[in-house]
Amino acid sequence: MTDEVVKLVVVGSIGIDTIETPFAKREDVLGGSASYACAAAALFTPTGMVGVVGDDFPPAYEKAYDDFGIDLTGLQKQAGKTFRWSGVYSQNMDERETLSTELNVFADFSPDLPSAYRTAPFLFLANIDPVLQHHVLDQMDAPAFVAMDTMDLWINIRKEDLIQVIGRVDLLTVNESEARLLTGEHFLPVAAEKLLELGPKYVLIKKGEHGSMLFSHETTFALPAFPLGRVEDPTGAGDAFAGGFIGALAASGEVSGDGLRNAMVQGSVVASFAVEAFSLDRLTQLTPAEVRERAAAYREIVRIP
Amino acid sequence: MTDEVVKLVVVGSIGIDTIETPFAKREDVLGGSASYACAAAALFTPTGMVGVVGDDFPPAYEKAYDDFGIDLTGLQKQAGKTFRWSGVYSQNMDERETLSTELNVFADFSPDLPSAYRTAPFLFLANIDPVLQHHVLDQMDAPAFVAMDTMDLWINIRKEDLIQVIGRVDLLTVNESEARLLTGEHFLPVAAEKLLELGPKYVLIKKGEHGSMLFSHETTFALPAFPLGRVEDPTGAGDAFAGGFIGALAASGEVSGDGLRNAMVQGSVVASFAVEAFSLDRLTQLTPAEVRERAAAYREIVRIP
Repeated sequence: MTDEVVKLVVVGSIGIDTIETPFAKREDVLGGSASYACAAAALFTPTGMVGVVGDDFPPAYEKAYDDFGIDLTGLQKQAGKTFRWSGVYSQNMDERETLSTELNVFADFSPDLPSAYRTAPFLFLANIDPVLQHHVLDQMDAPAFVAMDTMDLWINIRKEDLIQVIGRVDLLTVNESEARLLTGEHFLPVAAEKLLELGPKYVLIKKGEHGSMLFSHETTFALPAFPLGRVEDPTGAGDAFAGGFIGALAASGEVSGDGLRNAMVQGSVVASFAVEAFSLDRLTQLTPAEVRERAAAYREIVRIP
Repeated sequence: MTDEVVKLVVVGSIGIDTIETPFAKREDVLGGSASYACAAAALFTPTGMVGVVGDDFPPAYEKAYDDFGIDLTGLQKQAGKTFRWSGVYSQNMDERETLSTELNVFADFSPDLPSAYRTAPFLFLANIDPVLQHHVLDQMDAPAFVAMDTMDLWINIRKEDLIQVIGRVDLLTVNESEARLLTGEHFLPVAAEKLLELGPKYVLIKKGEHGSMLFSHETTFALPAFPLGRVEDPTGAGDAFAGGFIGALAASGEVSGDGLRNAMVQGSVVASFAVEAFSLDRLTQLTPAEVRERAAAYREIVRIP
C-alpha cells in the first residue's frame, strides 16, 4: 500500500466474476467497476478505493489491490459473501449476456469515507447505485473534479436519483447505448447536448472498439480506440478506460479541454491493455514503461498531419 | 463540363434509386457508386466518369453531373433502362435492406475508356463487377495510383476475380463487414494484414459513423468520423468518402502516408455532407468554402494536444 496522500477516491463495485468468451471460461476471478478503475488509476496517481467485500474475499485478491498500490483504507469487509457476477460474451465479443448477479454484501453497502479521503481533490463515482453515489458526494469536502459512470440498470430503475447525481458532477461518462437510453436520442452529439443540459460540464461517451468522444458546451473531441488484433476479455474495459482517464487527469491536474484530451489518450491505452487478458491479469503485469510506449505508438496512429 | 485534362478516372455504377428511411421516402433519385464518387472527387480534381445509362436517364441528372464539373466523355448511353435500386433503412439508419435491383443496361456494360482517360495518373475502380474493374485496368497506360472498392455481392459470387483485381491495385477500400467477409477475421488489424497480403500497399477500412482506418505494412492510421447530429440518407456515404479521398489525393499528388491521411480527412468531410440530404442533393449545393470550413472544424475535433 502506498504511503502517499490519496489524490483520487474511487467508489464502485467489487465483484467475483465468472466469465465465458467464445474461447475460454474463467471462474471466480477478480472484477467489479472499482477494481478495474482503481487498478488503472493507480498507474498514474495515489488512489483510494471505497467498496465492500465479504469474508470470503480471497486474500490473493486483496494482495493484488495492494500490489497495484491502491490505498485500501476505504475498503470495508463485512460478514457474508462478496458480490458475484457471471456473464457470457457473443462470438465477436461485442455483446454480452448476464447469466447471474448475486448482490450479497453489496445489498446493504453504505460507503463511509475515511477522513483522509474527504479532502481528496479528485473523485470518481464508478458504476454503482446512484443513491450511494449521492451518499459519497455528500461526504466529500470540496473536490476539484468529480466524474461519474453508471449503467442501464440504474437508468431503468433509479432514473430520478441518477439524474440528480448527474447534476452534481463535472463529468458524466457513459457508453453509447446508455447515452441513447438516457436521452432517447440516437445521434451522439444530440444525446450529449441533452446530457450536458442535466448539469455536467463534460460528457464522455465510450464507444468500445470505436473509441470515445468528449463533449462540452464549447467543444467536441473524438478519439479512435487503440487498434487491437486480439481481445481476450472485454470485461471492465470501460472501467479501466475511466480509471486511467481520471487517474491521468489527477496526475496532471490539468482540468481543461486539452488536459481531458490527453487523459483520454491514457485511458484508451490502459483499456487496450486491460482486454488483452482475463480479469485484471494484464493490468497486474503492466509497467509504466509499457503504458508510455503504447501511448507513443497510439499518438502516431491518430496523428493528423 | 470542365475543359481541364482529366486527372482522375472513376468507373462505377450509375443508378436511379428509390430510398426509404424512417422519416421519408424518395423515388427515382440519382444514385450509384460512380455518381457519388465523381461528385465528391470533382470538388478537388478534374474527374472523368466511366459508366452507362439507359435512354430513360433524365436530362436533369446529366445536367447535375455537368454542374459538378464531371467530364462525361466516358459516359455511355445505351438503348434500354438505367440500372435501378431500391432499399429501406432501419430505425437508426445503421442497417439497410435491398428491396429490388434491376440491372437493365448495366447487365451488358463494357467500359471502354476514351483515349484521353488512359493516361490519367489516378484511377478509382468504384464498386462494380470485378471483371469490369479488370477490363478498365487493362486499358490504362500506367496510372500512378489505383484505388478500388467492392461489395459483399462480389465477395460472394466473384471472389476469384475480385482477389485478382485486389492484387493489381495500390489501395483497397472496403467497409468493416466486407473486410470480415473477405478474410474471415473479426479484428480489423488482423483482417487488414490478410488483405495486404493480397497485394495492395494500402487497405482503407470504412466504418461509417465510427470513422475509418488506413493500414499498410508499416503503419496504421485511425480517424473518427465527423460527428453528425442528423443523417437524412446514408446512401452513397462510402462512395462519397472514397471519391473525396481519391480526389483530394489526386489534387495533392502526395501518395505518401501523410498524403493519404490528409486525403482521408477530406473524404470524411465530404461524406459528412453527403448524408445530410437525399441522393446527391447536398453535394450539389456544396461549395469548396464549406468543405474548407468543416475540414478546419474537424481537425480541431480530432486534434491531440
